[in-house]
This record gives sequence, structure tokens and C-alpha cells, in this order.
Amino acid sequence: MGDKWSVLVIGILSHGPLRFGTLHQRVPGVSQRMLTLTLRHLERDGIVTRTAYAEVPPRVEYELTALGESLRGTVHALAQWVTDHNDEIETARHQYDTR
Amino acid sequence: MGDKWSVLVIGILSHGPLRFGTLHQRVPGVSQRMLTLTLRHLERDGIVTRTAYAEVPPRVEYELTALGESLRGTVHALAQWVTDHNDEIETARHQYDTR
Repeated sequence: MGDKWSVLVIGILSHGPLRFGTLHQRVPGVSQRMLTLTLRHLERDGIVTRTAYAEVPPRVEYELTALGESLRGTVHALAQWVTDHNDEIETARHQYDTR
Repeated sequence: MGDKWSVLVIGILSHGPLRFGTLHQRVPGVSQRMLTLTLRHLERDGIVTRTAYAEVPPRVEYELTALGESLRGTVHALAQWVTDHNDEIETARHQYDTR
């Protein structure tokens, strides 16, 4: 649950429940397939709930559970660290790839 | 770098440099292939350095960089969260798998 996509999804859902389509727009660079897998893993781990509303058209929402809420601070710190050190990571990756 | 294996490797390397074989023993459940891939990703991200010593037999050590050291607190918090909530996660996984 600490992988890049999980960190982003948990961060975005920490502002409230969202539909798949909205989540897909707000998580930069994620494919629909990866978002589906990430949400399924988070649901399986008890971090997120998936609620389907019997409406026409059908509406499905994803929401952090209490367990997911308790992870928010840690995930935010990890996301912040990645943001703060992004340049160093990109530099390291370039050096590694051009060795 | 927040995935399970990276979190464990960073945590264990936070106590000092280690050889591949020792790391493989101390990271419970990791395969040699997964440890190799994890170390390669961490090296590429600038979190870990790989030093090969021209000895007979050859010795290779892995060590946290300054960037890796700066990640230690965040990674420790994530690992601690997983440890603290392991039962809830296992319960959620069982319920998900037996729906």
C-alpha cells in the first residue's frame, strides 16, 4: 500500500469519497487498468470501501475506511518526501540510466 | 519506493551497510530475484549505493545514501503502521477473499 499509485489514491480520497471517473482524472498518469488494480488491492487490504448505488446509470463510489484514514498521515509524509526530493531522484535515475 | 520490499530493505539498511546474502537472510520471505530487483530500483532512485570490493572472493555491499537516510523516518512510520494494523489488514483480506 506504499506504492506510488496507492499513495496518490489515498491522498486524493482523504478529501472525501469519489467516483472512479473523477479519481482517474485526478491521479496523474494512471491507466484505467492500474487504477482498477490499485483500488482492488486497497479494498482487499481494508483501506478503501467500494459502494455501488442502485441508480440509473449505476453510480460507484470509493471511500477511505477508518483504517485508511489512520494511514493518511504516513502516506502524506511519504508523498511529501517524494515531492521534496523529486529532483534528486530524477538526477539519480538519469545517472543510473546513462552509466 | 514505498512498496513492501523497499520498506523492509530501507529499514534493515538503516542499521548499516550489508552484503546481499545477509540482506536476503534478514528480509523475511523475499526471493533472491525480488531482492535483486528491489535493490536495483533503490540504487536507480539514489536511495542505495552498491559497492563492489576487488577482493577474492568478490565482496558487494549495499548502503543507504544521504537521500536514503532522509527517508528512514517516513519508511519506519509506514512499516510501524503496517505492523500495528496487520491483524485488521489480514481480517479485511480474508473477508474480501471469501465474499
